[in-house]
Amino acid sequence: MSGLLLPRGYKKEDTEKRKKWIEDKTGFHLNETSSDNPEDLRGIIENHVGFIHLPMAVTGPLLIDGSFAQGEYYVPLSTLEGTLTISMTRGLFLTHLSGGIKTRHIKQEMSRSPIFIFNDIDRCKPFLEWVTSNFEKIKCEAESTTKHGKLLRIDKYPSQNSVILDFVFSTGEAAGQNMVTIATHKACDYIKNNYSCEKGFKYYIESNFNGDKNPAYKSLLLGRCHYVVGSALVKGEYLERVLHVSAKEYVEGWTQCTRGSQEAGIYGMNMHVANALTAIYLATGQDVASVVENAGGIISYEVRNSNDLYATITMPSITVGTVGGGTRLKQARKNLELLGCTGENSSKKLAEIVCACALALELSLGGAIITDEFATAHAKYGRK
Amino acid sequence: MSGLLLPRGYKKEDTEKRKKWIEDKTGFHLNETSSDNPEDLRGIIENHVGFIHLPMAVTGPLLIDGSFAQGEYYVPLSTLEGTLTISMTRGLFLTHLSGGIKTRHIKQEMSRSPIFIFNDIDRCKPFLEWVTSNFEKIKCEAESTTKHGKLLRIDKYPSQNSVILDFVFSTGEAAGQNMVTIATHKACDYIKNNYSCEKGFKYYIESNFNGDKNPAYKSLLLGRCHYVVGSALVKGEYLERVLHVSAKEYVEGWTQCTRGSQEAGIYGMNMHVANALTAIYLATGQDVASVVENAGGIISYEVRNSNDLYATITMPSITVGTVGGGTRLKQARKNLELLGCTGENSSKKLAEIVCACALALELSLGGAIITDEFATAHAKYGRK
Amino acid sequence: MSGLLLPRGYKKEDTEKRKKWIEDKTGFHLNETSSDNPEDLRGIIENHVGFIHLPMAVTGPLLIDGSFAQGEYYVPLSTLEGTLTISMTRGLFLTHLSGGIKTRHIKQEMSRSPIFIFNDIDRCKPFLEWVTSNFEKIKCEAESTTKHGKLLRIDKYPSQNSVILDFVFSTGEAAGQNMVTIATHKACDYIKNNYSCEKGFKYYIESNFNGDKNPAYKSLLLGRCHYVVGSALVKGEYLERVLHVSAKEYVEGWTQCTRGSQEAGIYGMNMHVANALTAIYLATGQDVASVVENAGGIISYEVRNSNDLYATITMPSITVGTVGGGTRLKQARKNLELLGCTGENSSKKLAEIVCACALALELSLGGAIITDEFATAHAKYGRK
Amino acid sequence: MSGLLLPRGYKKEDTEKRKKWIEDKTGFHLNETSSDNPEDLRGIIENHVGFIHLPMAVTGPLLIDGSFAQGEYYVPLSTLEGTLTISMTRGLFLTHLSGGIKTRHIKQEMSRSPIFIFNDIDRCKPFLEWVTSNFEKIKCEAESTTKHGKLLRIDKYPSQNSVILDFVFSTGEAAGQNMVTIATHKACDYIKNNYSCEKGFKYYIESNFNGDKNPAYKSLLLGRCHYVVGSALVKGEYLERVLHVSAKEYVEGWTQCTRGSQEAGIYGMNMHVANALTAIYLATGQDVASVVENAGGIISYEVRNSNDLYATITMPSITVGTVGGGTRLKQARKNLELLGCTGENSSKKLAEIVCACALALELSLGGAIITDEFATAHAKYGRK
Repeated sequence: MSGLLLPRGYKKEDTEKRKKWIEDKTGFHLNETSSDNPEDLRGIIENHVGFIHLPMAVTGPLLIDGSFAQGEYYVPLSTLEGTLTISMTRGLFLTHLSGGIKTRHIKQEMSRSPIFIFNDIDRCKPFLEWVTSNFEKIKCEAESTTKHGKLLRIDKYPSQNSVILDFVFSTGEAAGQNMVTIATHKACDYIKNNYSCEKGFKYYIESNFNGDKNPAYKSLLLGRCHYVVGSALVKGEYLERVLHVSAKEYVEGWTQCTRGSQEAGIYGMNMHVANALTAIYLATGQDVASVVENAGGIISYEVRNSNDLYATITMPSITVGTVGGGTRLKQARKNLELLGCTGENSSKKLAEIVCACALALELSLGGAIITDEFATAHAKYGRK
Repeated sequence: MSGLLLPRGYKKEDTEKRKKWIEDKTGFHLNETSSDNPEDLRGIIENHVGFIHLPMAVTGPLLIDGSFAQGEYYVPLSTLEGTLTISMTRGLFLTHLSGGIKTRHIKQEMSRSPIFIFNDIDRCKPFLEWVTSNFEKIKCEAESTTKHGKLLRIDKYPSQNSVILDFVFSTGEAAGQNMVTIATHKACDYIKNNYSCEKGFKYYIESNFNGDKNPAYKSLLLGRCHYVVGSALVKGEYLERVLHVSAKEYVEGWTQCTRGSQEAGIYGMNMHVANALTAIYLATGQDVASVVENAGGIISYEVRNSNDLYATITMPSITVGTVGGGTRLKQARKNLELLGCTGENSSKKLAEIVCACALALELSLGGAIITDEFATAHAKYGRK
Repeated sequence: MSGLLLPRGYKKEDTEKRKKWIEDKTGFHLNETSSDNPEDLRGIIENHVGFIHLPMAVTGPLLIDGSFAQGEYYVPLSTLEGTLTISMTRGLFLTHLSGGIKTRHIKQEMSRSPIFIFNDIDRCKPFLEWVTSNFEKIKCEAESTTKHGKLLRIDKYPSQNSVILDFVFSTGEAAGQNMVTIATHKACDYIKNNYSCEKGFKYYIESNFNGDKNPAYKSLLLGRCHYVVGSALVKGEYLERVLHVSAKEYVEGWTQCTRGSQEAGIYGMNMHVANALTAIYLATGQDVASVVENAGGIISYEVRNSNDLYATITMPSITVGTVGGGTRLKQARKNLELLGCTGENSSKKLAEIVCACALALELSLGGAIITDEFATAHAKYGRK
Repeated sequence: MSGLLLPRGYKKEDTEKRKKWIEDKTGFHLNETSSDNPEDLRGIIENHVGFIHLPMAVTGPLLIDGSFAQGEYYVPLSTLEGTLTISMTRGLFLTHLSGGIKTRHIKQEMSRSPIFIFNDIDRCKPFLEWVTSNFEKIKCEAESTTKHGKLLRIDKYPSQNSVILDFVFSTGEAAGQNMVTIATHKACDYIKNNYSCEKGFKYYIESNFNGDKNPAYKSLLLGRCHYVVGSALVKGEYLERVLHVSAKEYVEGWTQCTRGSQEAGIYGMNMHVANALTAIYLATGQDVASVVENAGGIISYEVRNSNDLYATITMPSITVGTVGGGTRLKQARKNLELLGCTGENSSKKLAEIVCACALALELSLGGAIITDEFATAHAKYGRK
């Protein structure tokens, strides 16, 4: 059985032992290196054996007028989808000519949602009342585990003979999934130990209700992590020059080329917001699996001033941070610095940049489909 | 305006020009390197300036009895989420002890779904009849653009005064998004030029109906790319030893700790399948934005033989390939070789490995939540 | 315990016994009568004690150019929502002035979807192959239970260690839920008794997959019962006169006043199609609980010819019939005759009338909201 | 054109004129009568011409221990689906033997959700602040239109360059859709006239966000009208005797026979809750089109005490009232009296009865499917 067990540990020699172990088992020699030290990977990955090198590009300049992001930004991307970078660059160019993209940061909330299970449905009400009365103590427990997390409130959802408590935190510059797990766990322990009205109730730290790594209507409705709204007023003249389309054609075309969303049962209303998010997340050390919970942005277009195109986007969930997790990696950190996303409010700034770039990519992509340049562009940029 | 335009090109000197350009604009010097040549990145990325280095781990051995994947596999992962690798390793260990994971590959289909718009709803029927009668010619046109893609059928969805045609292809070892775009475009051009019964109809190559980079109930129902089913019969004794839980506790616990899925409006039924997919996709050169369309797997558990746990998973959409796109990168290729995923049926094999690893990770994660080790594990492995 | 049991039976004296029984228990005397005989209620209701009288209205004339419905129709409605009838009448008047509503009947399919459960995931494939090879025999069994039902095909959905078979029937003039249950049950018995490759597999006649009495994306995508598309080209002049709005204002307004659909996670895209369906279903003896599965129609609007409004509707699921069930009731039958919905293709005709009336109601309602007459109208017509 | 216009009015002679008009146009004579006077139908229906007579049954006794409903109830139903009444009676009998059904009323909230549209995304924030500061005045305006409605809060959802305000009311004994429309309209007028920071913004009274007559994840999550939870502990002995199934078989069977819900993309988790709701709504004068928004209840089962079945149901949306609308009709009123649903808290009581009956029907239906009696029962009770 021990033949099944990979050697553990975060030291350089542990990594070497694992590489040797794999080589013994499979004959494969793994040798990609990086400037990041194995020791620095604690908290990010276990069983480390090497590195993946993904190509990085830069797009921009993004011109943005946001609640936190202001000015011009050169945005690092990492992607394996040919055409993506050049398309986003086109969208950013188009919006830059037209005066840039405006974003507003609405809120930042991260939650963990344990479930408490009782023997009988009538045990839920007294429990909820107790939680309400003891909020300050619960908050104190939760916040004892973190310097930056603040418990904003506990939302309560009765369900069958159980109650889901949605612990909603502000998490500072961190995306905060880990922070809220640990804080909520402490709070739940307190509840478990102090709610004396009831014997034998159980809780699980997770009820899948918070939408972590899942596409959830709840996140679309109530938000998860950063909730950002964006817009761009694209001048008709530049729309014609850059995308070869009029505002009227754009609005009509987009209506048609997203018609399938409703029939296919797609959550949100956009074409490929996921692409923009993935590329920026990879370049800035984000947990890219979160794109699953973030991809449901809603985009809409209208004609303004006869021939200008007014594009708006609502992204109720952008799960990014500028500290913790993969943001510690050297290139990620460098890229965050390139974006000026360090220090106070930097995660909000990053979320605004993500939102703006998503809008730019959609603008360009929509144009490509409407003018029938999409397949040609992919034949050109998506093949060797 | 020219100040806005990044230098283009795929040559080494083009990359250098861009790095210089960024340095001039921002003062930042980008210097991460890789063994991949900029010239080799054509078709994967534009505006190349450098590389992202993501840490890579190995997990396993996965013991699998699949339609295509057979035997033991050491699976490369790339992730920034601490605990993920060790948790998947635990799940693979558990299933290995119990005789491994069984998978069955159901089908592999990739589609592109253009929309054809008519002036009047009664123009749809003759059009659909014409498409049916001319299927062989349309197929011939579509397949003229690709060596490996085969047009299996055209599914027809009337909608308002338009019709969505879902061009369904088999795409060999490629995930095939690009292949079906180009092939469908050729087919649409043929239709446009030869359907003479009607003047002035329009088409767009994309209606958002195919669920590309979106979570779609259509994909859950009809599949997208690989459709794989998996199972594991975990012996009670190992379940206790490795996860510290009985089969009965597991089934009851899992029911509770996924209760929030329905209330939150989550598509599919799993905890964090997205995590497993993301980690393997990154390590094997897949387009990781596709995880958005793939994350809706359905998992279920039942008690068997008094105290064994029977776990099953249905993944109707796993968008992976073993040729094209990012699989050309050196480390990705090496990792595909490590998995034996080269040559005929290798993409099916890879999809089965992905499915099995997703099941293993879920098994372990479920255990951690049910036994309340989840927060502790994340405190241990998810922090620096 | 016998004190708990209501007297049974379909005779007049059984009804009287029950009325007496209720009177004894509660002191209540039930005395509403009807021209329908208790004996005629067999197959529709058990425990009969009396009648509900719902007010009936007539709207119209609907001018329609359908695949089956042609000409002018006076449509009976039964509703308790003040404003509904007058609003639908307004919509019908508006479309009549403009040349009427066009509908096209796309298909009519009703399914029942049993689930077959195996001990192991690899038992699914041979089972599916057997079902395919034995289709003709299975069809023969299924059709032996019905004069009008025809088994069109069996769609196959593998899921975990089970397989859902969607038995798709054409059901003639009946909505057909009952017909397909009985026919599918016979077919399943045949399968159970003749599929000898496997011992110990189980089946349940229902897997909830067919979307019976549930809102299902499957029904939106693949249809359930009648699938109908409709349109109206409303002349700008009449739009102004009847709805006091221009086509441009209408399109813009409608976009805004349905914006919440996406955020709220609403299936389909319409305002209150459910209202039109409910009113006609009640008046024509339909099972009004089916409105739940039918309410997801998709409506869209565009400006044509500068100031005309082109309205289109796709209703993939309209569960109506003209024989069987409540259509046997005297007033229902009379109302079906008023609509000319008897005899061959009458259920298709009825479905087209339903679709057209739904469009008319939406047109009028949209106008009321856009011009801010909605609340005023409800204050006027929705209060005593 | 006047030939298109039906005569209007609520008087007996108006009804007669319309009947004459229809007779002239179509040759049809409409002659069903009722004890309700045409004059009494004002606010319920326009264009009145007659009555629909639907058969009514009684089921029960329901034994219930609710927050408001206590004791035994004989429940009036109106349905056209054979088997429904007898099946619900079976479920009520089963739960009565086992000690009855417990329900808890969680909350009652009805909302209307207008959308306010601005020229620019940055106009949303000051607007929301103004709404918050002026809540008391807005509340005062809203409540000036109603004796029973109270504005509890205004939930705020920024979306694109607009804001959806969800006006959440308690509505006393009324379901309250009409009440909240008129109250919200008054409030919006106040906002429109007094929010002076901004010129040229628009609002629509409806954004489709409140889920009125639509299946909405929002309603599942946040509730709409009555939010009720219910449970029953069914003794194993009675389960065997009445449903011919053990608790273990029930739980396993139900898991399988609802498996299709996830794949089909069904909202909520139940079989046919819609049937129970429709039958009670019809019998008690409710707006039966609301079943569309109410059908997403979540049901679950577990084995307790070795062989008892613990059934729970969460119904976050039950749109019923005991005053206003169709509850004024004579038979509806009589049926409400039969249920003791008059006076204070009667709408909450009715909602609990609805929830309990839905659970009873599901219990019985589940049993029928699991024991394979479903098709046989429908062959017996669903045919003439």
